[in-house]
Amino acid sequence: MANHQIGIPKGTRDFGPENMIKRNFIFDQIKVVFQKFGFLPLETPTMENLSVLTGKYGDEGDQLLFKVLNSGDFLSKVRQEDLQQPQARELLPQIAEKGLRYDLTVPFARYVVMNRNDINLPFKRYQIQPVWRADRPQRGRYREFYQCDADVVGTDSLICESEIILMISEVFGRLGLKNYTIKMNNRKILTGITEAIGAEGKEADFCVAIDKLDKIGKEAVQKELSSRGFTDRALELLEPFFNLPGGLTEKLHGLKTIFTHSATGTAGLEEISRIYQLAEALQARLEHIDFDITLARGLSYYTGTIFEVKVNDVQMGSVAGGGRYDNLTGVFGMPGLSGVGISFGVDRLYDVMDELKLFPENQIESTQLMVANIDLASEPFALTTLTTIRNAGINSEIYPSSTKLKKQLNYADKKGIPYVLLIGPEEINTGKLSLRNMKTGEQAALTVEEIVKKITVAA
Amino acid sequence: MANHQIGIPKGTRDFGPENMIKRNFIFDQIKVVFQKFGFLPLETPTMENLSVLTGKYGDEGDQLLFKVLNSGDFLSKVRQEDLQQPQARELLPQIAEKGLRYDLTVPFARYVVMNRNDINLPFKRYQIQPVWRADRPQRGRYREFYQCDADVVGTDSLICESEIILMISEVFGRLGLKNYTIKMNNRKILTGITEAIGAEGKEADFCVAIDKLDKIGKEAVQKELSSRGFTDRALELLEPFFNLPGGLTEKLHGLKTIFTHSATGTAGLEEISRIYQLAEALQARLEHIDFDITLARGLSYYTGTIFEVKVNDVQMGSVAGGGRYDNLTGVFGMPGLSGVGISFGVDRLYDVMDELKLFPENQIESTQLMVANIDLASEPFALTTLTTIRNAGINSEIYPSSTKLKKQLNYADKKGIPYVLLIGPEEINTGKLSLRNMKTGEQAALTVEEIVKKITVAA
Repeated sequence: MANHQIGIPKGTRDFGPENMIKRNFIFDQIKVVFQKFGFLPLETPTMENLSVLTGKYGDEGDQLLFKVLNSGDFLSKVRQEDLQQPQARELLPQIAEKGLRYDLTVPFARYVVMNRNDINLPFKRYQIQPVWRADRPQRGRYREFYQCDADVVGTDSLICESEIILMISEVFGRLGLKNYTIKMNNRKILTGITEAIGAEGKEADFCVAIDKLDKIGKEAVQKELSSRGFTDRALELLEPFFNLPGGLTEKLHGLKTIFTHSATGTAGLEEISRIYQLAEALQARLEHIDFDITLARGLSYYTGTIFEVKVNDVQMGSVAGGGRYDNLTGVFGMPGLSGVGISFGVDRLYDVMDELKLFPENQIESTQLMVANIDLASEPFALTTLTTIRNAGINSEIYPSSTKLKKQLNYADKKGIPYVLLIGPEEINTGKLSLRNMKTGEQAALTVEEIVKKITVAA
Repeated sequence: MANHQIGIPKGTRDFGPENMIKRNFIFDQIKVVFQKFGFLPLETPTMENLSVLTGKYGDEGDQLLFKVLNSGDFLSKVRQEDLQQPQARELLPQIAEKGLRYDLTVPFARYVVMNRNDINLPFKRYQIQPVWRADRPQRGRYREFYQCDADVVGTDSLICESEIILMISEVFGRLGLKNYTIKMNNRKILTGITEAIGAEGKEADFCVAIDKLDKIGKEAVQKELSSRGFTDRALELLEPFFNLPGGLTEKLHGLKTIFTHSATGTAGLEEISRIYQLAEALQARLEHIDFDITLARGLSYYTGTIFEVKVNDVQMGSVAGGGRYDNLTGVFGMPGLSGVGISFGVDRLYDVMDELKLFPENQIESTQLMVANIDLASEPFALTTLTTIRNAGINSEIYPSSTKLKKQLNYADKKGIPYVLLIGPEEINTGKLSLRNMKTGEQAALTVEEIVKKITVAA
């Protein structure tokens, strides 16, 4: 059979053991933090009805949904006239009712609405699952990738925002990332700015344009705003906002003066100020927070605080982001439920940690010891010893056949197993087994108890 | 918006926090055991090319594959003549190139072949991922469900089989399941039987029929064999095999005599015998093993030992199964790679454990403590205390707003949080905080240190 038949779909990946152990390390740290803050796990189906997904991600999003063909004779329900010279657009809704999950937010909203009578509000859930987008694959952009979200819905308390700051710091601390910035802003402040520059009602346009500041620079943003109908006068009034002087207190004070006539802008400032207070009471490390009024985040459902996290020593887009939304479930007929969430990008975090060499060398789920298979006569003793070592909590294995020792050692080396235990007739006689440290090549004659102790201490 | 639009596809499920915590308990126990035995994690993409999946699961399997529509204008590549009056059969391969993973075995084989030059043989991998089948949903049968597989390929050592027996016992021990049976047989013995009854070459038919013994009974199996061309004489000769007398030794001895002229049958008996020896050296609990020569397992790729595990106190099919295969990767152009694997059925294990009430009551990932939100003035002190408690390793949260205490306690109760901490002006003054045990209703005045100690000891 030709090899071209055994590829995998473009934009998807296999994760072999080495990758998996590193990825699981990231997932585990995030999970522990989510749980520490009272978030509980939720999983939703891979397939959702297209009626749930369509129209939630804009026209482009609808294009990028993977659609699943109806089972059986998928043409049997198609209208006769649409079968004559079928067009994809007419045919699609008649042959595909399901699509693959595009993000974790819409399924979460769907879950909340479906279970509205049983859910315990405020509902704090985390969700770590893959999502699929039929995007053009490129470096760092995949068609299947994981999202790690934590959201709390059913409360507008700003304690939630301050806890998100703390959670970000905790995750980054656990991953060993030290030099990072949590950019924070508030959609209400962006509204305030549009009001202050005489561009009321144009906050959506403003957000889309200002969101590109990092990528395309100030001049290009001004150009885009101009093409979106912002007057020269408005752009002139906007100028000072690009470089607000001073620290947090000065910025807040300066904006307060400008927002005298904007109730929304003033509310945004008060929220920012309050979040700092609450985060301080929670003993968050405030030096990582950067109040940045040019942060906008493209997605349109945010209505309050917005977050974006960057690692500073590495060339990489944001590795986490989130914010508050006031009407996530409205589209499913349940208005007025406020919530706030944070999402970590595992693929980017993986690349950052790999570049900074932050992955721990010897992971706990890896195999710690291999018993070499010396000869058939020694096998029973070797197997019993193996069970003793395993029961002491050490992940271990025996080489399944008594081939050349060199081949066995080579296997252990390639698998990254740090210790090999040699059990032959001599060792069985003396009760002293030969433990080989695969890194140093040193070999020591030890009892089983000594071996267990040595490896347990080293781990 | 009408509610009918927000269902989920039939045969799929949401897993809310309560379910997830129980499911994760099962996954975690299985993972720990897999790792203890030197298996490392692998994940493959949700979508595979249909060229990889098709033809691997029989005609019925091909029908049950979920197919994913090609992105964009999926009709653009269809041959003009097939668009005139399209038939599903002709259209399908032109509009869908990808399908959803149907099991974990074929993707594993595909992975091994694709990475044949880098893989460290023998390769021990475990894989815990969902699979999808467009089956008619019914009680206990879903269209999306998880499989938990561990396989080792690249060795024919029977140590692997004996370790699988040990792994099954370990998983069941960790889940609290005590009364279970590991049925074991060997395909070579089934071949030996067909030879002994003069039905050489009909082992495939024999396996399919005998596999139904549990469900349809002996007479119906005999009828089916008859309809599959087994002679009356063959059925007569088969009769004694249904009820082989004696224990393991007697059975092996009796069969040895019958298999004098069957080299394959004799080899099967020797394998069984050797696996018992090796399992004994590994200190496996042999009393759970039942050598059952009527066990066949429907799937056709097994060639040696086969396993099936049943929980005895519960009305439920097998909860785990597996066996040895000699040519898993042959279909992808890499013949002669022997392997053996075991697969745990999480959905069934879940139902069994639920019925037997074996799930631990207070899971570690659950929230252990809620700080009640008494009033705004006490909030800063409450938040600082919360951080102290969290940093002591206790998963905890604060109720986000100072609503009625009764509402807050009700929230904690519904979430199953065992402790609520009340911090108001009086508590702040005395430094003695009120810890309420939600189960007993008892309330005690304690310092933060005392609270941490109490909860940590209780967990």
